[in-house]
Amino acid sequence: MKILVTGGAGFIGSHLCDHLLAWGDEVHALDNLSLGRVEHIAHHLDNRAFRFIQADLLDVEALSALFARERYEAVFHMAANSDIRKGSEQTDLDLRQTFLTTFHVADCARRFGVREIIFPSSSTVYGAHEAPLSETTGPMCPASFYGAAKLASEAFLCAHAAMHGISVWIFRLPNVVGERLTHGCVYDFVHRLKQDPTRLVVFGDGRQSKPYAHVKDVIDGMMLGWEHSHERVNLFNLGGEETLSVGEIARIVADEMGLAGARIEYTGEAGGWLGDITHFRYDARKIRSLGWKPRHTAEEAIRAAVRDLMRAQPPANPGASAP
Amino acid sequence: MKILVTGGAGFIGSHLCDHLLAWGDEVHALDNLSLGRVEHIAHHLDNRAFRFIQADLLDVEALSALFARERYEAVFHMAANSDIRKGSEQTDLDLRQTFLTTFHVADCARRFGVREIIFPSSSTVYGAHEAPLSETTGPMCPASFYGAAKLASEAFLCAHAAMHGISVWIFRLPNVVGERLTHGCVYDFVHRLKQDPTRLVVFGDGRQSKPYAHVKDVIDGMMLGWEHSHERVNLFNLGGEETLSVGEIARIVADEMGLAGARIEYTGEAGGWLGDITHFRYDARKIRSLGWKPRHTAEEAIRAAVRDLMRAQPPANPGASAP
Repeated sequence: MKILVTGGAGFIGSHLCDHLLAWGDEVHALDNLSLGRVEHIAHHLDNRAFRFIQADLLDVEALSALFARERYEAVFHMAANSDIRKGSEQTDLDLRQTFLTTFHVADCARRFGVREIIFPSSSTVYGAHEAPLSETTGPMCPASFYGAAKLASEAFLCAHAAMHGISVWIFRLPNVVGERLTHGCVYDFVHRLKQDPTRLVVFGDGRQSKPYAHVKDVIDGMMLGWEHSHERVNLFNLGGEETLSVGEIARIVADEMGLAGARIEYTGEAGGWLGDITHFRYDARKIRSLGWKPRHTAEEAIRAAVRDLMRAQPPANPGASAP
Repeated sequence: MKILVTGGAGFIGSHLCDHLLAWGDEVHALDNLSLGRVEHIAHHLDNRAFRFIQADLLDVEALSALFARERYEAVFHMAANSDIRKGSEQTDLDLRQTFLTTFHVADCARRFGVREIIFPSSSTVYGAHEAPLSETTGPMCPASFYGAAKLASEAFLCAHAAMHGISVWIFRLPNVVGERLTHGCVYDFVHRLKQDPTRLVVFGDGRQSKPYAHVKDVIDGMMLGWEHSHERVNLFNLGGEETLSVGEIARIVADEMGLAGARIEYTGEAGGWLGDITHFRYDARKIRSLGWKPRHTAEEAIRAAVRDLMRAQPPANPGASAP
């Protein structure tokens, strides 16, 4: 199958390329390298089933030409701003990078006969809810521009599905960790402890608690949903029921770095940062009913991410997010 | 209170101006007159508490200057493309007129200290559901770009509420009818019967059934919700439980025009047009719990709209929508 992966040099996108190539698909990875890194896909550059396209999804003319020429069968639209906090500060970032990219990809899919769009959405589309989040939870009330832009993206994908017969798979992801992490609290904690191994300053009171999933478990879930669910719109919460607090994560990161003695200091506010949903859990019954079972606990996923970050070179484009 | 009404010369917007001025507010009505008409607000042009501003919400510089100068206390953001079918054909119409207008209005509200945004959303945000629609119905899966753009608008308004302390009232409206109608099936039926009083061609099988509300009942509901609900985000389905089929509407329109003998012909498809939700009902308990009670039945609302359209001059900018 000939597949376009937008954001293909990014954290989740590059793992997806690994997986699709291993399954024998022809994969074009498109990335503007604003967050993605060529080293994430360097191991595929000699593969004739793979092509890397450095381009920006907001260049609609170039995007149209690409779709017209390549006639993709499916698009995994992984490109987005992934730094929620930055999107809360720079108020048009998620409009442009998280929503308008989706709008243009979906529009090209419609115009050039793509039949399938697979889209990683986010738990942030729900906003704050006490009960575990299921796919039918409502109302949707995102608390960040990132969550708003993901929900806006879902909305336009659903309209394309209803009107233009495109099949859509939407996976609402929790915090995703693992190798090639480019942002998020695990990423930040590692970098802060590299700078000062004696102490780690954590924004908030450390009690924010959320599900964490290993990137490979997320890819497995997406493949399972894509293969076995055949509605016009296929919607899944993709993550386990287990949650970890930010304080627990800080201790796991320090421990994995061999810095169990580091002092962990909390700035103390109840929420971590503007736009943060401090507590949520998943009702994961729907994806589990397809046989999905994460192979990593949240702690294992975090430890894997830390080990990888310890090996990695300092990034060319350092992330700026923090919990 | 100093209030901006975007789309203030439009169908619902102009009724809202009537209401707010009658209650003693200072009202600025902004409209680009793409769908709105000066004659809808002509009776206020001499009122010193009223000002008409012809401007386009996508001119962000002019919009910012207006907000900076006027320091509004509340904004009713009524401007949108209101022609769902046209938005399904012209695929960036709702992106621009229904969503990006909201994005810019909300952004200006944030930057210039507006504390309250009141927003008419739509039943179309839900997509197709069998059960009556309540405010907690999920998942949201709009079937038109209009519905998608309204949901995207809601999403960004919620994010502003969570992050920037702006209070938001969202009213999900059904089909709204009454005086000054500029689009929709009642509008179309009247104009088709004016052209040929012997027969009326109706797209679809006539069985699509939906709630219809009189514009004055909708304004009453918005005022009630705005006055008595004080969450950060206040969400209401605003419409009655009663539904009418398109076939019933065709007969009511013909009857009110004195053309009860006109032949009504159906083109026969199960759905009316691309993006249409053919059947839905409201669970209106939440707005009713505030004391809302429509003063017009759906049939009365439609008859009022027909009488008004019979009096009206042919429009300068004819609508193009049809069920």
